[in-house]
Amino acid sequence: MQPMKLYCFAQSGNAYRAALMLQVCDVPWEPVFVDFFNGETRTAAFRAEVNEMGEVPVLVDGDLRLSQSGVILDYLAHKTGRFLPDTEAERREALRWILFDNHKFTSYFATLRFMVALSGQSEGDVTAFLRLRAMSAYGIVDAHLARSDFLVGAMPTYADVSLAGYVFYPERAGVELAQFPHLERWAARIAALPGWVHPYDLMPGHPLPPRAA
Amino acid sequence: MQPMKLYCFAQSGNAYRAALMLQVCDVPWEPVFVDFFNGETRTAAFRAEVNEMGEVPVLVDGDLRLSQSGVILDYLAHKTGRFLPDTEAERREALRWILFDNHKFTSYFATLRFMVALSGQSEGDVTAFLRLRAMSAYGIVDAHLARSDFLVGAMPTYADVSLAGYVFYPERAGVELAQFPHLERWAARIAALPGWVHPYDLMPGHPLPPRAA
Repeated sequence: MQPMKLYCFAQSGNAYRAALMLQVCDVPWEPVFVDFFNGETRTAAFRAEVNEMGEVPVLVDGDLRLSQSGVILDYLAHKTGRFLPDTEAERREALRWILFDNHKFTSYFATLRFMVALSGQSEGDVTAFLRLRAMSAYGIVDAHLARSDFLVGAMPTYADVSLAGYVFYPERAGVELAQFPHLERWAARIAALPGWVHPYDLMPGHPLPPRAA
Repeated sequence: MQPMKLYCFAQSGNAYRAALMLQVCDVPWEPVFVDFFNGETRTAAFRAEVNEMGEVPVLVDGDLRLSQSGVILDYLAHKTGRFLPDTEAERREALRWILFDNHKFTSYFATLRFMVALSGQSEGDVTAFLRLRAMSAYGIVDAHLARSDFLVGAMPTYADVSLAGYVFYPERAGVELAQFPHLERWAARIAALPGWVHPYDLMPGHPLPPRAA
């Protein structure tokens, strides 16, 4: 079997979701580096040939090309039978958390981290807005994880892999895992899964070159 | 069959996705008004009894209670066989657009509209940030709809219902449909579906009472 290819870069937790899923499902894969910080995802060529949405990750499996991490996780779970909920009700529950993740849990934090820690923008109304919303979403997930070890019951599913996208990055932008103890313990459970690798050791492009002044 | 119940309020396009899906699938339903503007979704009772995520919509079908509009759309499509893509590849494509919708297309616009048009906040860095990102997401959807009548090929699917959540509201906060001609024509196609009703005529709570000074 040809290894799958994953368009990604080290700083993208959206891509890390897919890379981590490949790891924990023990699927052979190789990265295709995307030079996000020099604008590659915004080029016409990337949008025409790789992803019209201008985003990573993109997974290539033979003739199949998939984008959106939630689609990739669903695909890999069904293909490998790993991290797949058993019942229809649990499958809906997994999708529910993946949608909440895309809408609120990851998206506010990821944008905040990018602005504060990666693009060097200063604190202001926008970072305060994003931090407030990220904290609120983290609180909702923390309250849920007070009641179960994983997002959908007692076993990890691809919903856990989705929400794990950004929790291992050291750049916290003021959203510290220690403030959310159930979430922090859950993150440790994910890091203990066989195959787990830290995002900066798993995908190309870390560390970033120093920014031009 | 008992009518389904939908927790909703007129100003929520997230809820409208579910209400519109019930309409176009010809499913009997009745609304349960949620007093969002007086803080109902933030109460402990709402989070304990209705939705831990503190959001509408919530659909009740007998003993089943579902939240996240994407889950509700998927459920109704499978239950009724309506607006359901035919193939696995198309099903993934529908999920791809629903995720993009939750992450970018609806979420930036919905928050912008809420701030500018419903909560009376003034323009500033945050609204500029949200408008720029909403415009970018609208541009990506417009470019896609230049090539097909609906999001997943020639027939409408539940992905179209998802992205239609906020496009019919009159409060545009500077993101005018006329700037996105393919998207505008697509919205007209959705409005022509049998069963379509404008959000302000479909869900309770419109118009809002005047704000206290």
